[in-house]
Amino acid sequence: MQNAMQRLDEIVKERGPLLAGLDPDFEKIFSLQQTNSEITEEDYQSKQDFFWDVMKDFCKKYIDTIAPFVGAIKINSAFFEAENMTNLYLEVAQYAKEAGLYVIGDVKRGDIGNTSQKYAQAFLSKGSPFDAITINPYFGTDGVKPFLEMAKENGKGVFVLVKTSNNSSDEIQDMYLKDGITVYELVAELVNEWGMSTADGDEDYYLVGAVVGATYPKQAKRLREIMPKTFFLVPGYGAQGATAQDITVNFDRTGGGAIVNSSRGIMMACKSKTWKDKYSENEWREAAIAEIQRAKSELENAILCYLEA
Amino acid sequence: MQNAMQRLDEIVKERGPLLAGLDPDFEKIFSLQQTNSEITEEDYQSKQDFFWDVMKDFCKKYIDTIAPFVGAIKINSAFFEAENMTNLYLEVAQYAKEAGLYVIGDVKRGDIGNTSQKYAQAFLSKGSPFDAITINPYFGTDGVKPFLEMAKENGKGVFVLVKTSNNSSDEIQDMYLKDGITVYELVAELVNEWGMSTADGDEDYYLVGAVVGATYPKQAKRLREIMPKTFFLVPGYGAQGATAQDITVNFDRTGGGAIVNSSRGIMMACKSKTWKDKYSENEWREAAIAEIQRAKSELENAILCYLEA
Repeated sequence: MQNAMQRLDEIVKERGPLLAGLDPDFEKIFSLQQTNSEITEEDYQSKQDFFWDVMKDFCKKYIDTIAPFVGAIKINSAFFEAENMTNLYLEVAQYAKEAGLYVIGDVKRGDIGNTSQKYAQAFLSKGSPFDAITINPYFGTDGVKPFLEMAKENGKGVFVLVKTSNNSSDEIQDMYLKDGITVYELVAELVNEWGMSTADGDEDYYLVGAVVGATYPKQAKRLREIMPKTFFLVPGYGAQGATAQDITVNFDRTGGGAIVNSSRGIMMACKSKTWKDKYSENEWREAAIAEIQRAKSELENAILCYLEA
Repeated sequence: MQNAMQRLDEIVKERGPLLAGLDPDFEKIFSLQQTNSEITEEDYQSKQDFFWDVMKDFCKKYIDTIAPFVGAIKINSAFFEAENMTNLYLEVAQYAKEAGLYVIGDVKRGDIGNTSQKYAQAFLSKGSPFDAITINPYFGTDGVKPFLEMAKENGKGVFVLVKTSNNSSDEIQDMYLKDGITVYELVAELVNEWGMSTADGDEDYYLVGAVVGATYPKQAKRLREIMPKTFFLVPGYGAQGATAQDITVNFDRTGGGAIVNSSRGIMMACKSKTWKDKYSENEWREAAIAEIQRAKSELENAILCYLEA
């Protein structure tokens, strides 16, 4: 049986290297939806129900929009928790799954063993809509193990934070250890070990993946060497500033082994420099499709050039 | 105005150094509640509603039980997320707040800035029942800042993971950096800086606290030196194996600056070596009170001896 990362690698090879992120910032979508839906004044009567419906409507429209053009979606739990809509988070993930997408739960959980066990139950149990989730490595092996075990049991995967895409990620992650490697390289070695510990022996990619920010190509190149059989989830392209050239080093020599996320870049494409003159806010979906097609072709070309070089 | 950690320090000085943790493991509480409630067969009709009621009933009873004997509670989000009861998590936190307790949301969130902003909104906004939450430092300053800003704005606090109580915490946290300090010491220096960045100047404790495992007294002693004005949340006492002597070094010379958590130790006291012969499962609340009183007096004596030494 293929593990969750091998499944994802096939999706990348069939449907391209771009992942659509869903970070539904309520204030932003509220402005998009208002001009674009048939919600009436009376809906305001019950505010919380109304907000819920706006959020749900947007998320479903987003999924319907992207599903024909990408193979996977990453859904960020924070944006639902902020609005007290955690049940909707699961409902939206289920909707994405039914739309045929590979669904990544961007939850970044992590704790001591007995608590990680509960987070694993929440997101990686058999009936869960998620194919994989993101987790935090700070607790070390015994905090990560319950996620690995449940992922293995239920054909799911995990992406461990290794080198994150934000500016301050150097403060801890890039510090040099006594033996000459950095903290992110140490974490990469652990991720490699965790991958091996769950391996069947004949897989191209372990079920344990890594989050490697597109904004740090030098570090990503090194991480590709340390983790040859690890699938990379690559945030930071687009809105966070990384270019298509920056992301190429995350891929391996098969042109696989990685998938690139764009969240705000797709969702808010109608307001971006590239598309704002062509599309109005009413046409946020058309702009999202245009941006997906632009980004996919840009990424695919960059990867091709990289592989040929 | 007192910040959230100064408030907590007053609570420790008035009501003792013990914090009651609430980790409602559904399977465990189900067995406790079954023998102890008037739930009938018909309640089984709607299973999910029934489970919800069992969980809610237990959590409220736990809070009613502990509130006269401790000043603070730490509620672990994972155990609610595992049962798809996140709304109940907030309801229970609100109930604890109304019972007069200082409420710590043990959520261990952390992400890039715009996502941490959303988690901060979820747990540290003005109307939130939480006085403080736990957060993860791996992203560095820009991932932590939204929590600090919202905490400061709304009179709340954060506890940053520094040295965790689990066995594998050494794998990353205890590694020595090139300049001779460990990763946990580096994180402590950051926590200190984050504390200073939010300080008013005349506080005894910054609004930025630290999670420091009771299971590592040697490291805790060093951390107390690095972070003199940081309030410590100390897990690992009791069920995880740390003794009352182990925790003393987390306190400062005023006998304050720290609070010690016991979750399973209190909740499952009726099944512990110390209490199982005296109390039946039916009497889990009596056993919890007995354990609180035993632990409080043990901790208070140990701290007194430590201060006098």
